This record gives sequence, C-alpha cells and structure tokens, in this order.
Amino acid sequence: MSKILIRAMVLPMTGADAFFPQGEICIEDDKIVSVGVLGSAPAGFEPERILELPTDVVMPGLINTHTHAAMTLLRGYADDLPLMPWLNEKIWPFEDKLTDEDIYWGTSLALCEMIRSGTTTMLDMYASMDQVASAVLLAGTRAVLSRGLIGNGPNGERALQENIELVRRYHGTGDGRLSIMFGPHAPYTCSADYLKKVKVEADRLKVGVHIHVAETQDEINIVREQYGKTPVQWLDDLGLFSGHVVAAHCVHLTTQDIEILAHQNVCVAHNAESNMKLSSGTAPITELRAKGVVVGLGTDGASSNNNLDLFGEMRSAAFQQKLRVNSTVLPAYEVLEMATVGGAQTLGLEDVGVLAPGFKADLITIDMDQPHFYPRFSIPAHLVYAAHAGDVRTVMVDGKFLMEDRRLLTMDVGKVCQETETRAKRIAMELNVK
Amino acid sequence: MSKILIRAMVLPMTGADAFFPQGEICIEDDKIVSVGVLGSAPAGFEPERILELPTDVVMPGLINTHTHAAMTLLRGYADDLPLMPWLNEKIWPFEDKLTDEDIYWGTSLALCEMIRSGTTTMLDMYASMDQVASAVLLAGTRAVLSRGLIGNGPNGERALQENIELVRRYHGTGDGRLSIMFGPHAPYTCSADYLKKVKVEADRLKVGVHIHVAETQDEINIVREQYGKTPVQWLDDLGLFSGHVVAAHCVHLTTQDIEILAHQNVCVAHNAESNMKLSSGTAPITELRAKGVVVGLGTDGASSNNNLDLFGEMRSAAFQQKLRVNSTVLPAYEVLEMATVGGAQTLGLEDVGVLAPGFKADLITIDMDQPHFYPRFSIPAHLVYAAHAGDVRTVMVDGKFLMEDRRLLTMDVGKVCQETETRAKRIAMELNVK
Repeated sequence: MSKILIRAMVLPMTGADAFFPQGEICIEDDKIVSVGVLGSAPAGFEPERILELPTDVVMPGLINTHTHAAMTLLRGYADDLPLMPWLNEKIWPFEDKLTDEDIYWGTSLALCEMIRSGTTTMLDMYASMDQVASAVLLAGTRAVLSRGLIGNGPNGERALQENIELVRRYHGTGDGRLSIMFGPHAPYTCSADYLKKVKVEADRLKVGVHIHVAETQDEINIVREQYGKTPVQWLDDLGLFSGHVVAAHCVHLTTQDIEILAHQNVCVAHNAESNMKLSSGTAPITELRAKGVVVGLGTDGASSNNNLDLFGEMRSAAFQQKLRVNSTVLPAYEVLEMATVGGAQTLGLEDVGVLAPGFKADLITIDMDQPHFYPRFSIPAHLVYAAHAGDVRTVMVDGKFLMEDRRLLTMDVGKVCQETETRAKRIAMELNVK
Repeated sequence: MSKILIRAMVLPMTGADAFFPQGEICIEDDKIVSVGVLGSAPAGFEPERILELPTDVVMPGLINTHTHAAMTLLRGYADDLPLMPWLNEKIWPFEDKLTDEDIYWGTSLALCEMIRSGTTTMLDMYASMDQVASAVLLAGTRAVLSRGLIGNGPNGERALQENIELVRRYHGTGDGRLSIMFGPHAPYTCSADYLKKVKVEADRLKVGVHIHVAETQDEINIVREQYGKTPVQWLDDLGLFSGHVVAAHCVHLTTQDIEILAHQNVCVAHNAESNMKLSSGTAPITELRAKGVVVGLGTDGASSNNNLDLFGEMRSAAFQQKLRVNSTVLPAYEVLEMATVGGAQTLGLEDVGVLAPGFKADLITIDMDQPHFYPRFSIPAHLVYAAHAGDVRTVMVDGKFLMEDRRLLTMDVGKVCQETETRAKRIAMELNVK
C-alpha cells in the first residue's frame, strides 16, 4: 500500500469552476482517494510521502489521441517539402529501413519527450507494436496501441493477424495501462472487404477502431471518385462506425459528415499542428463540438509537427479555430478539456482524464512560479496560451512517479538519445543522405 | 577589456550553409571578434573566461519587432472575447489605471520573460516610455522604444512632445543599446495633419516611425470610408513611407499595397499569434517576402498572445503560412532569418542579428541535449519546429551575460513577479473584478 499526499493548486478538470488555489490530493496505490482544499484528506489517511508544491498546479495528465511515436526517428529528416515527394522520396524509404529495435528506441524517445511535456497517455498507430508495448510498459505511461493496417499493401493480411495477436497478448496488461485497438490506416488504403474484416475482428475481441479520416482534399477526391461518397459516408455505409471509433484528422467534412459522426458517437482526434505544417487544412472543431462530438488532441508523428508537446498543440488548436471562426470560440478551459477529459473519452478510458476519487492517479504538476505565468489572473488561460513543455515539473501515472523535478525516473534519457541518434543516422547513411 | 570564448555548435545566421558543429566564437567587450571552427580564435586571443557548451547551439539573440511590453500586466485578464467588448470593457479601462510605476514593473516582467526565452532586442510601443527605458537599461537588453501616439485622443499633442523628449534623452544611450522611433498608433487613430507633424519631427531628429497598419478588416473599412483608400495607400500618399518605417501587422493587403511597401522599403513586423488569437487574419508574408519586403517577427502584447516567446512565434509563423499557401513556404531557415537578421533589418540596427566579426555580441545558447532535439538531422528545423522557450540556457547582450544556466543575472525575478502580481490585482480590484 502506497499513500501519497500532494499539496498544490488543484485544477481537477471536473468543471469550469472547480479549482482549489490551496488544495490537496490524496493517492493510494494507483488511485485517487480525495481531491479538495487543504485539510480535506480523509480521516486516518497517513501518507508515506507528502509533496509540498504550493506554486505548482496539479492537473490530470495530458492525453495524446493520435500519434506515431516511433517516427521521432524521422524528426527533422525532411521538412518543408510538397506532400507526395516528402512521402515517396523521404518518409517511406526511411520507414522501410526500420528494424524492430529501431522502433523500440524511437518509441522510447517519444515516451521520454511525452513524459517531459506532461503527456501520460497516447493512442499510437505503427508497426512492430510488441516493441511499442515493451517500451510503454518499461516507461510506465498509459497507452492505447493499434497496428497500422494498410489493407491494400502486400502485408495487409499479416498485419491484421498481428493486430489480433496484439489484443490477445497486451490488452489490459501493465495493470491495465495498456489497451489495444485495431488500426486500419485510412479509407483510401483499405478496401471495403478488408475494413469489414477488421470490423468483425474488432467486434469479436470487443476493442475499438482507430483510423485516419478525411485528412486531405486528395483523400476526399480519391474516395469520391472510387465510391461516389465522402470518406465519412463510405465508412458509415460499411458499418465501421457502429462501435468505438477514433477518427483522426477529420479536416474536410461536409455538414452531413458532421451529423453522421455525431449520430454514431465517433470520437475525433484533432491534430492542429500537423494539419497546418502539411497544409492539410483546418478541421471544423467548433462545429463538431457544437454537435456534441467528443474531440481529443493529437500531435501526429514527429515528422509532421515536429514535437510531441500537447501544450503547443492546445495553443495551436485554439488559435487555429479562432483564426477560422472568431476570437470567442474554443476558450481556454474547453481546450484543456479536449487535452484531458476529452482525450480520455476519445480513447474510451473511463478512469482517467479528471482528478476525482476513484480515478487512476495519472497527474502532472506545472511550475507556475515563472515570469510568463504572472500575474495569476487565469490558470486555464496561462496553461493554454502561455505555458510550454518545459514547465512540467512532476508526472505520475497509475500512482507511480515517472518524473520529479524534471528528472525522468523510469528511463535512461542519455541512452535513449544516443541510441536514436545512432540508429537514425545509420538509416540516413544507408539511404545515401548525409 | 573583457575577453570571452564560447565553444559550442555555432549557427551564425550568415547564410543557409553556415554552421559549425564544433565551433567557437570570441568576444571582446561588446563585440564579436571571430566566429568559426574549433581553434579559429585569432592568435594571441587570451580569454578570461571559456564557456564549454558542446551540446548547445549558439546563435544570434532573437529580435521581437513589435510588442507592448508593459501589457504583461494584463496577461490572462481577459481572453476569448469579441474584439470591441474586449477593448472597451476590459483592456482600455485596465490601461487607464496604470501608473508610471506599474508600467516600469510590467515592462520588467516582460524583460524577465524575454531574456528567459532568448529575446535580446525588442521594438516597444507604449506610454510612460521613460519608465520603459529605465527598465531596459537595468535589465541589460537592447531595445527600440516608441511612444504610442493616439493623434485623435485628448493627449495627442502631449504624447508627441513626450516622444520628441524621448529621442533627446534616450536615443543612443546605454552604450547604444537604446534607440528611439516615433510611434503614431494607426491610420484610424491619427489624422493626416497629425501624421504629417510626426513625420516632420521624425525626419528632423533622424529617427524612424513605428505604426500599426492594416491589422483588421474593420480598419480597412474605416480608412476606405474616410479616405477612399487602403491604409497603405493613404499613408504612402501622406509621405509617411519616405524614411525608415516599421509597419506592424499588415494582415489585409492588396497586391498594390504589397508593391508600395516593397517600393518604399517599408519593413513589416509580423505577429502571427496575435493575428490568430484575435481572429484578425493571416498576413501575406510569403508574398511580401517574394517582393523583397523585409519582415521581422513580433509577439504583440501579452494580452493577445499571451506570452512573449519568439520560439512559439517562429513555429506559428511557419505553420500559418503553410496552412494558407502550401507546405513548402517559409522553410525553417527563412523563419530563423526573420527572427534574427530580418528583425535587425526591420529595426534599422546594423550591428546585430548575425554572429560575425565586428557585430555586437548579442547571442543566445540553446540546450540541444534533450529528447525533443534528437535525432540531430537539422538544427534549423529543430529550432523552429521543436524548440520552446525553456530550452534557452544562456543570453548575452552587448558582451554581457544576462542569463547563465537559466539563472537571470541582472534582474530580481522574485521581486518582479511579486510586484506585478500585486499591482495587477490591485487594478483588477479597483475595476471591481475579482
């Protein structure tokens, strides 16, 4: 039995008015026992450890609802190119060279960066997902993993088998820190038959589906030419949306698409920065939320961002909607909701995303005693509009500290950086690029 | 005579290919003596101090070409509101309450934040500019100051006299760290007669003019209704553009406006984040640069940003243009140019913005030995797309250290934060806002 008491400003994300300027939170093993003002700990709660952080805000850990973690290996390898040459000449040839071990180390680099920037949970889509699972189990974070399935590719069938095996081996492991979804890549890379097969397996194994949808105008054109429908219409007609689905991107949507997503309770993973950097467009997040669609935030992979910092992503998500609609949409607290409780809902995780009794102790603290957080008029505004990744001081997942005073406790950062540097440079050299 | 040698990765910003992975830079008093590979120090150069920072990048200090520093006092005070209620009911009543001392401390808070985020020079526009000058002289940064001149307001004449006095008292002081411009606020807040008077004084005193131009569609409508011209056309016809002019924002421009700005060598201060947060629009930076217009980056005031972090601003500037045009525009190195050498050109400062012999020793170092900077494929891409304010380790201005190992050397951060907290809360209380 481990009992921990944290005294800090508490932003539990249970409602826009819920804030304890002098608060405390009690944790027993992996769970939150109480959240409230100073002195609100239950009678008889005798902590083994008390963290006194009066100038920190403690809040739920951030949730990254769409990423390809191992792609940190490609950070800075190719930028500022047109989409197709970028993919054909740079990204795909590099990815073809990745070994299982490369993916393990690339994911570990992503996890180092995520923990340091306050992300406690990710939804990942990639290959060699057993390597990803190993990295997550060791790092101590929470994750939902999906095998990327290119149905139209030569390995479509094998990949589907790998995803099935992934569910069998990892779903619910790590004391429940790991769960699994199926990861059909996109409407234009999977046939109707393939998607139906994926859906049968997902239903049989009672897990969700994670898929890229309506990311670019090209995708809209391809799907319309092939099926005479929008990607959302087509996937809906296939029956893909009947269960738990995370649709990543959703940039190019019709009014009817938005109705379908809302009606089918499809959750959207919004990737503001990737959508800007690749010039994909601006997702209609304001309209989606107005229709009641659950939206989480994602960074996408580090080759199109190029970091995994959800503080930057919150800021960009707010700014992008304000630019498109007006200055009042997506106010700060709503953006924080998308990054926490909205992320949890998106991923189908019912016991994280807020700080409340009975929830998992996934939390972070942010050092507010810095010039860019003064004066202290609004903690939500400061977190969304002024904070950066380096402001995170403490990270806890499942009741265990992963970072204290910015020092990572579960990972050897030097080793991870060195391994990824060597491995990425090796691949670049093989591809004859200096 | 002070002699300092810094060994680090050197990004001098003298050209896209100029980079020394193992470099060194020699500084004597306020100036750079040499820049090159390890061992390139001039014969006989005997440093009193050697900084060994092999995993840092040393680069020119960042230049903020448009801000209202003292507005840090309003950080988080009012966000997510429509423009006019935001100004009328929140920002202006608060500003009306500011004393000279408030402005001193608000500016000091801004300077703390700027130094910590790698900004060594700012172009400021506000009131009580002698207070701003005092704060800058003490902090040790470089600054160009302009008195904000609302010609149509009740204090138009007095403010103009203050700006004249500001030139007389401060232009060239602080060993040249301070210089002065005139600050007529905007085409819609100053009459033709007033602007002409300002221009006469600027010419007589041989200093430039800093003005908001074409920030919002409302401004375009007002000026067109009043004068039948665009703001740029109108200011050009008035003769305002004949000397050194910094035009802030320039969001809404016609093709002819861009031609005028290019032909008249008007420099543009681009404020990507403020333009997004206030929903002003996206400035045609790609087109301006294509026509040869010099563009620098600015944060605007902390009430519309809400930080003064030029790393975030670089990232947003790139993303915003890519979203509007395509993924290839404003590649990373060009964005770095806007934040350094472009900023220096915008401000008319000929001896900062690059690291080269004879230039002022205004430089920063960035700690690249962190997970989000691996693998090290591209230093410019990492600085623009992955870095954040907290990555700055060292700041030097005019050959003097202002920050080492993230510790501010010229300012009492605790005192500044406390003063601004007390003063801002006092004003909010007076305005009967909790």
